[in-house]
Amino acid sequence: MNMRNFKIIIALFLISNPLLFVNAQISVNQDRLEKRIIELAQFGIQENGETERVAFSDADIAAQQWVIEKLKVMDIETHIDFAGNVIGIRKGTDSNMKPISFGSHIDRVPNGGNYDGCLGSMAAIEVLQVLNEKKIKTKHPLEIIIFSNEEGGVMGSRAIVGHLNKSALGIKNNTGFTMGEGVMRLGGDTTRIEQVARKKGDVAAFLELHIEQGGTLEKENLAIGIVKGIVGLKWWDVEFNGFANHAGTTPMNARKDALLAASKFIIAVNEIATSFDGAQVATVGRISAEPGAPNVIPGHVITSLEIRDLSSVVIEKIYTAIEKRAVEINEESGVEITFKKLDTTADPAIMDSLIQSEIEKSIKSLNLSYMFMPSGAGHDAQDMALIAPTGMIFVPSKDGISHSPKEFTSASDMANGANVLLQTILSLDKRLK
Amino acid sequence: MNMRNFKIIIALFLISNPLLFVNAQISVNQDRLEKRIIELAQFGIQENGETERVAFSDADIAAQQWVIEKLKVMDIETHIDFAGNVIGIRKGTDSNMKPISFGSHIDRVPNGGNYDGCLGSMAAIEVLQVLNEKKIKTKHPLEIIIFSNEEGGVMGSRAIVGHLNKSALGIKNNTGFTMGEGVMRLGGDTTRIEQVARKKGDVAAFLELHIEQGGTLEKENLAIGIVKGIVGLKWWDVEFNGFANHAGTTPMNARKDALLAASKFIIAVNEIATSFDGAQVATVGRISAEPGAPNVIPGHVITSLEIRDLSSVVIEKIYTAIEKRAVEINEESGVEITFKKLDTTADPAIMDSLIQSEIEKSIKSLNLSYMFMPSGAGHDAQDMALIAPTGMIFVPSKDGISHSPKEFTSASDMANGANVLLQTILSLDKRLK
Repeated sequence: MNMRNFKIIIALFLISNPLLFVNAQISVNQDRLEKRIIELAQFGIQENGETERVAFSDADIAAQQWVIEKLKVMDIETHIDFAGNVIGIRKGTDSNMKPISFGSHIDRVPNGGNYDGCLGSMAAIEVLQVLNEKKIKTKHPLEIIIFSNEEGGVMGSRAIVGHLNKSALGIKNNTGFTMGEGVMRLGGDTTRIEQVARKKGDVAAFLELHIEQGGTLEKENLAIGIVKGIVGLKWWDVEFNGFANHAGTTPMNARKDALLAASKFIIAVNEIATSFDGAQVATVGRISAEPGAPNVIPGHVITSLEIRDLSSVVIEKIYTAIEKRAVEINEESGVEITFKKLDTTADPAIMDSLIQSEIEKSIKSLNLSYMFMPSGAGHDAQDMALIAPTGMIFVPSKDGISHSPKEFTSASDMANGANVLLQTILSLDKRLK
Repeated sequence: MNMRNFKIIIALFLISNPLLFVNAQISVNQDRLEKRIIELAQFGIQENGETERVAFSDADIAAQQWVIEKLKVMDIETHIDFAGNVIGIRKGTDSNMKPISFGSHIDRVPNGGNYDGCLGSMAAIEVLQVLNEKKIKTKHPLEIIIFSNEEGGVMGSRAIVGHLNKSALGIKNNTGFTMGEGVMRLGGDTTRIEQVARKKGDVAAFLELHIEQGGTLEKENLAIGIVKGIVGLKWWDVEFNGFANHAGTTPMNARKDALLAASKFIIAVNEIATSFDGAQVATVGRISAEPGAPNVIPGHVITSLEIRDLSSVVIEKIYTAIEKRAVEINEESGVEITFKKLDTTADPAIMDSLIQSEIEKSIKSLNLSYMFMPSGAGHDAQDMALIAPTGMIFVPSKDGISHSPKEFTSASDMANGANVLLQTILSLDKRLK
């Protein structure tokens, strides 16, 4: 091959390869994003190198102030709303248009990790900074939201969609402050908290980038998950009433062992959840057995039961099958089994199909691998979906670990997610009115 | 039939019917025995009508003093030994003979019943009183022993057989007193406690009447159980190490659920214990699952495991089968299972065969129904068997309930047991040297 032919082939290759083509697009600064994740983790860092930043803690308040500084330096109009959310606005060119909103949270569970919520928050700042640097204007205002107290009951997003129950303000978290006290500490105002509520149509679209918190993307070796919806969940307490008796003097065939019945139940929950096609999950996470001595047959057991799925119908189907098995276990064992439905329920939130397809187009333009998937965990996006077309973008979590100091997502995985967020914002700005 | 023939038939009937014949034997006073059970229950009685009399409590001390008074009035030489046991001696006619000993305990478990220990103690007093009333002399001295702190680790009987571990004296019970402090409260002396230890040959025979604490006699509609032996027991802690993870984001097939593995284990323990012939029992009475939240897959579970049988070989056989199933559960689930053997073990105590046959003869002479059976619970007799030929007599427990205020044995069942005790003492006095 002579040099001329070689150059032509290279030119054709550059045109035909989308990955190289993408390099012409604007993209986020991976190093800067990674640096900000590390910087944010300094707020609340402990002697052992791990960070604690539960909502309302001094570290949480300091981190919010740091975010506000970052945004103000970038000429983003920023304030804390009455619910303690950080709200920043980058003006659009069309004053009639509602904002395209995006963001996540920076509060953490106790003994949590550096990526849950933090990635979506830092990527939102990075997107705004790149647009500023590239002097790209959008028709829609772009709104960054850093939601307050996500981990303690999606407080900030519930307030924004007008679903924050007043009674929730009395609940303490492990800082010792109630939610109401915490709102005041963050710079909110509990007497005017209802004023942050928005209506359908107030927000053009909402996007949230988040770590997957599961191991599916890593296992499938894929860069991005397009969230189809956030699963609903229902909780029950399940009570087993047998008869406590002397473990030495009560023959095996004369026992009403509540723990034995509960064990059969726990296995049944697992079998039923895996017996149907689909991504539904069912979990028994908590158990207590009374009187709880090695030499006494347990007479009384309480377990939790949680079922999650994208479809309320599927949740009901799984529950009905579990209930039926419980009746059989009762008949075999003589142990009475009763279900008590708890208030802790969340309806499934389906992500907007137009937004899902715009996310997919952005991913393809970036030549990244991807899959559609449900979100098994709850997010602020679950509330936002009640008032705005909403989409979520997932990136891999190492070993599927989350809510742990071991949580990790690589810098390139984070940058991939932030680039998808950036491209989706830009395409929605063109597409949406 | 004329009157003369009728009288002959009646006379033949009286001679041929052992039950009526027995009425010529001496027997205990059922009403007096029942009354003493009720009287004893006054020590520690609460406003709700239930009695609390844990060892070393004021009620326990008062009840001991009451027993001592009863015995002294009957001319029984009585004292409290260095271990806090009440010891009463009724002299025999042959000064070379060792005592035939019998008794039980009057301390109770918290929230316990009026019969466990109390029956054997009150029946022992009743037997001595009847012998006094009938002016019956025995060759052997007759010794009543009311053992101290049976429920807190068979303290008094362990001291008598020289097996009381000094370190046990530091253990507190729910009175707040240690065993050492309790011994002092009862009138014992911890500095001289070793002096109560007896050697093989010091006691001619030991007998204990006790409620069954199980439901077998009632179910079989039998009056008396002849105890073949007291089962040995072994305890383990079983640890399950899986992986705690988010219950929403971790698919069913990607879980290492320690509680699911523990449930399979609990069922296996039950299946294995019931799969062999025999009266062995195996129990999982205690469980804890961490982190213990409804929305987190349990990563760590600890359960107890207890196996009891009259044969140490059977206990080992059951354990080996359970261990094998644990390996299979580990292979299926990826959850690691480890067994930690605990110190809380007791070797099986076989009851003396001569005494068993003397008890059986006494039962037959009283025309009572009976069966041979193991004792699933531990008793002072278990220690006494180490130094003396020992036997136990069981009477029915209503609904098999024990260690509960619901514990009940009818007055006639109690009197049956006390009469068997009386007749066995008298026949052993003739039989033994």
